[in-house]
Amino acid sequence: MLPTELKDDKARVNIGRVIIEGVQPEIDGGRFPIKRSVGESVEVEADIFTDGHDVISTLLLYRRETDATWKGVFMKALVNDRWRGSFRVEDIGRYFYTFQAWVDRFMTWRRDLMKKVDAGQEVAADLLIGSELIQNTATRASGADQTMLSSWAELLVSGKPINEKIRLALDKNLGRLVTRYPDRSQATRYAKKLSVAVERARARFSAWYEMFPRSCSGQEDQHGTFKDCETRLPYIAEMGFDVLYLPPIHPIGHTHRKGRNNALQAGPDDPGSPWAIGAAEGGHRAVHPRLGTLEDFRQFVSRAGEFGIEVALDIAFQCTPDHPYVQEHPEWFYRRPDGNIQYAENPPKKYEDIYPLNFENDNWQELWQELLGVVRFWMDCGVRIFRVDNPHTKPFAFWKWLIGEVKKDYPETIFLAEAFTRPRVMYRLAKLGFTQSYTYFAWRNTKWELVQYFAELNRAPVREFFWPNLWSNTPDILTEYLQMGGRPAFASRLVLAATLGGNYGIYGPAFELAENAARELNSEEYLNSEKYQIRSWDIDHPDSLKSFIARVNRIRRHNPALQKDRNLHFHPVNNEQLVAYSKHTDDLSNIILVVVNLDPHHSHSGWLEFSLEALGLDPQQSFQVHDLLSDARYLWQGFRNFVELNPQIVPAHIFVVRRKVRTEHDFDYFL
Amino acid sequence: MLPTELKDDKARVNIGRVIIEGVQPEIDGGRFPIKRSVGESVEVEADIFTDGHDVISTLLLYRRETDATWKGVFMKALVNDRWRGSFRVEDIGRYFYTFQAWVDRFMTWRRDLMKKVDAGQEVAADLLIGSELIQNTATRASGADQTMLSSWAELLVSGKPINEKIRLALDKNLGRLVTRYPDRSQATRYAKKLSVAVERARARFSAWYEMFPRSCSGQEDQHGTFKDCETRLPYIAEMGFDVLYLPPIHPIGHTHRKGRNNALQAGPDDPGSPWAIGAAEGGHRAVHPRLGTLEDFRQFVSRAGEFGIEVALDIAFQCTPDHPYVQEHPEWFYRRPDGNIQYAENPPKKYEDIYPLNFENDNWQELWQELLGVVRFWMDCGVRIFRVDNPHTKPFAFWKWLIGEVKKDYPETIFLAEAFTRPRVMYRLAKLGFTQSYTYFAWRNTKWELVQYFAELNRAPVREFFWPNLWSNTPDILTEYLQMGGRPAFASRLVLAATLGGNYGIYGPAFELAENAARELNSEEYLNSEKYQIRSWDIDHPDSLKSFIARVNRIRRHNPALQKDRNLHFHPVNNEQLVAYSKHTDDLSNIILVVVNLDPHHSHSGWLEFSLEALGLDPQQSFQVHDLLSDARYLWQGFRNFVELNPQIVPAHIFVVRRKVRTEHDFDYFL
Repeated sequence: MLPTELKDDKARVNIGRVIIEGVQPEIDGGRFPIKRSVGESVEVEADIFTDGHDVISTLLLYRRETDATWKGVFMKALVNDRWRGSFRVEDIGRYFYTFQAWVDRFMTWRRDLMKKVDAGQEVAADLLIGSELIQNTATRASGADQTMLSSWAELLVSGKPINEKIRLALDKNLGRLVTRYPDRSQATRYAKKLSVAVERARARFSAWYEMFPRSCSGQEDQHGTFKDCETRLPYIAEMGFDVLYLPPIHPIGHTHRKGRNNALQAGPDDPGSPWAIGAAEGGHRAVHPRLGTLEDFRQFVSRAGEFGIEVALDIAFQCTPDHPYVQEHPEWFYRRPDGNIQYAENPPKKYEDIYPLNFENDNWQELWQELLGVVRFWMDCGVRIFRVDNPHTKPFAFWKWLIGEVKKDYPETIFLAEAFTRPRVMYRLAKLGFTQSYTYFAWRNTKWELVQYFAELNRAPVREFFWPNLWSNTPDILTEYLQMGGRPAFASRLVLAATLGGNYGIYGPAFELAENAARELNSEEYLNSEKYQIRSWDIDHPDSLKSFIARVNRIRRHNPALQKDRNLHFHPVNNEQLVAYSKHTDDLSNIILVVVNLDPHHSHSGWLEFSLEALGLDPQQSFQVHDLLSDARYLWQGFRNFVELNPQIVPAHIFVVRRKVRTEHDFDYFL
Repeated sequence: MLPTELKDDKARVNIGRVIIEGVQPEIDGGRFPIKRSVGESVEVEADIFTDGHDVISTLLLYRRETDATWKGVFMKALVNDRWRGSFRVEDIGRYFYTFQAWVDRFMTWRRDLMKKVDAGQEVAADLLIGSELIQNTATRASGADQTMLSSWAELLVSGKPINEKIRLALDKNLGRLVTRYPDRSQATRYAKKLSVAVERARARFSAWYEMFPRSCSGQEDQHGTFKDCETRLPYIAEMGFDVLYLPPIHPIGHTHRKGRNNALQAGPDDPGSPWAIGAAEGGHRAVHPRLGTLEDFRQFVSRAGEFGIEVALDIAFQCTPDHPYVQEHPEWFYRRPDGNIQYAENPPKKYEDIYPLNFENDNWQELWQELLGVVRFWMDCGVRIFRVDNPHTKPFAFWKWLIGEVKKDYPETIFLAEAFTRPRVMYRLAKLGFTQSYTYFAWRNTKWELVQYFAELNRAPVREFFWPNLWSNTPDILTEYLQMGGRPAFASRLVLAATLGGNYGIYGPAFELAENAARELNSEEYLNSEKYQIRSWDIDHPDSLKSFIARVNRIRRHNPALQKDRNLHFHPVNNEQLVAYSKHTDDLSNIILVVVNLDPHHSHSGWLEFSLEALGLDPQQSFQVHDLLSDARYLWQGFRNFVELNPQIVPAHIFVVRRKVRTEHDFDYFL
């Protein structure tokens, strides 16, 4: 039996002589899209080859999901049958790409003709063949091109001198013209249509600030409101944050409510955890009455917008025993044989204030639709960024569906996955649609840990679908490093987060005030955590890092190299306490070199090495490094230079690297 | 809209909570099979995980193509959600494998119960849940198991003391019993059915000898016959070869026949190249009249079999202008505009004695069937091994189809691809069905080249589908190394080929007689090549390597470590002219350590390092290395030992490594 693909047309078979394989990027065989932000380029490679010695031509095809036709761009041959091509994505939404390649009979003929001419061989028969090929090409062209091709074909078999005919045959204009009308009847089309999820710019470059709205009144005994939050907006904007993430803003349950410092019994005035959602006043679509009204929230979102700040909400799909769902839909929860609803547990730990939802319950469709409705409800209030609490404890299929539904209508929506769990699970969530992901960054504190971890995140294919959001602290995570290192530790972690990642975040004001008291030894919980009580913060304290943070965020805004995760390279320093890395734009027009002293207690110095050629610097010339933190400028030379950092002053350099300009005419000698 | 996979059954949905991905091996997303030989094990790994904290169970499923049902073997968890399982392939042909995994509610319950018991928590409700789970399991069991499960379920809710019920709940026998009847209604089945091409043992372990039958008469002026070849069989068998490959045995064309040393004009007595197939006497199904008859050939194949030697034929799908196909099927060839049939060319080179076939001609189906018929014709003569000439100049689809057709009926057939071309093309041929492949081995002569190349061949996924056949020379390839290095070069290349590869070959008697005269400087062509003339060889010459070769082949037969390409490790020697590597069986019962002096002219010595622990040796104990070439034994100690090799004596050690046995009772102190 002959292969089925050969059966169609006896007269003109396409046996697929050209093979297309080894495509990069292609996530899990094309099952998941790669991610890009608007304006970025998609660079793809593939192994493309055929039997024998024929010349092939290869097209990278791409289109928006909504386009009816493909655009094609010729790919370039690298070495060993590897081809590369690229295209830019200009619009938010979905793009597709695939490949087409064929044996190019004209180019094969042309190459062979050249070799024969060079060897002084007789080529009359070859000119006949070429004329036929060009005539054939003319049938696919029209208008002036068709006429031109036809006459060219005739010239090759005319009575002109052979040398003239050879010159005509090898003319570059002929080559260009023929290339416009290739014979693709025997082309191989790559079997898969691969996709690109194109996100808006803020999905790739954002600075997040997490804040408990109820702590915004300025007094510990007074529940803050959205109005109070409005007064905090200038402060946040001055620091340079553009996403303000609020923990859940819904009514908080009373049954088994947790007290201060996670006490099992709440006192009468304890406000409870915002993640214990649902009370008589309402559930996931309601606003906590003491924060204000839904209208107050809408106004707050709008006010934030005026400061260039986008409000992000928390999606925490879990309920207290007091949540309206428990009465209305008891079938959505797990029921135990004794008739009670099962509270959350991670044995031997019990969370009696929380009922997990059963996503596989018999009435699952209604549940899923309701939860989608919750997201849509807040989108109607103007929210387009969601931080999703513990997505890894709900089925993958649920998130894939929910995010897909939302993005169909609002492709600009950003979902940040708060899944502090095993790598495969975190990666899967990123593949199925989460825009950004929390990471292990907070626990990567030594040079070796940082280098290893960022190598892992920047490796293919992870970098194609997993966009880290680097948090130095969260209400759940006050790392040992921050507990022990004082203000310099906060400063160095901020620089690392803000320069290693296009996306980063802090939980404040705890962060900028360098709050480092843990609940107990070996705990990463804050003492008097805002999760269980209202705090007041002295945001104008003279030791606050707010102006340092503002400076770092300004540096990020002014330097495109820091606005993506691409082109990150670590450089050796002969001191384990100093970590150095650079980031640069693709065109090398902006090069940032960061050096951080990881020891918060002592000054350290060392010799930093980096390859000048890789950064487009002339190794024969000195160059300038300008510290954007201290504004100091240094003249460096060669691949090895001295660095020294005192953490009590500033624990980091953020250098912009400037090439020497070869003229005396400029007032500023460097550009 | 809800995902389609969720629509089937509202009452009992399977939302696929368990994810299976990252499967290894899986060639090009499962498009091609991996290769194994009979009796080998298939070890597979996958990332398998689910949301949340539930325990999962994972099955590796496998079956022969002809089996109606799958066998399952539970996989073992490694780290980070990676699972591993394996099965053995016992029969030649095709096997399939895939995966199934599910949330194991019983094992989850059991784990949580244990934690609660350890924490001294109240577990009455948990026993109720467990009883339900076990009762549910009973419905899937039958007979005694069902009864046993039912009573166990009842015991957990009986009036027995709570501690007794806990003991019963955690009983290992209950665990084993429940595991036999898992609830797989919500299982995830891996979407792909992956396949294994299982080859016979000789596909994995073979020693090839290439010989021109026409040179077997013993006289340059007399055309050898199959009868003459029979007299050569004891010689070949004594050297220990088990595959005898003959260049094409068909009638040779006269038009544009090539003379001695590839002269454009053949003399009247020049026999022509065996690869110039087709004359008045017949084409690809005919035997060259001077070799004898088809019956002679059949008898030769049968006689060879008596010596344990299998005859391999050459498939060279190309024709001379005198081939009967040219008259019978001119449409199978390329026709030029001037009406002539196009001869082969690789401009500026012309091969006017050869017409290539056009595999895409309008009558392609007839051509393809005819060529399949050629293979079947020789299979009817008892041939089951084919060396395919230049497969990379014919379409991939053709070979995939032809090999598939042949293997449907005769899965034991072996195809060796002679494609000295670019890596991607060689790999593709191996993927689509070629059993073995020629390699670049002949041109890998320095230590660095050897280490790099074998790292490439042993890397996943290449090692899963590409089985090298290492040739030190061929009638086309007399490398510079052999030309310059004399007899020691031939000896060292033989040891490298025979110990680095399960499959290897030589072209003789040129090889064992260390024939090293090239046609001209910078040419790899033999002077007076057998491709164009009959040669007589003094096979009893005292300098012949025949007994050395016999010894090496005996070592291969007695040491299973050398019979596969697995477990190859290079070891450092502080001398670039000495290369060292080991191979061992999976169970470490056979360990071979090879050291080769790559400099054919000078003695070299150095310190060899290797990890004793990795080879199962006690670093505190001395061990014996027994050189199977010289029969010398050395007592070594520690990870660093001295080696010295004089190429004029023997340029290599082939050590078997023996562990010390802790007893004084054995006469031979080592085992």
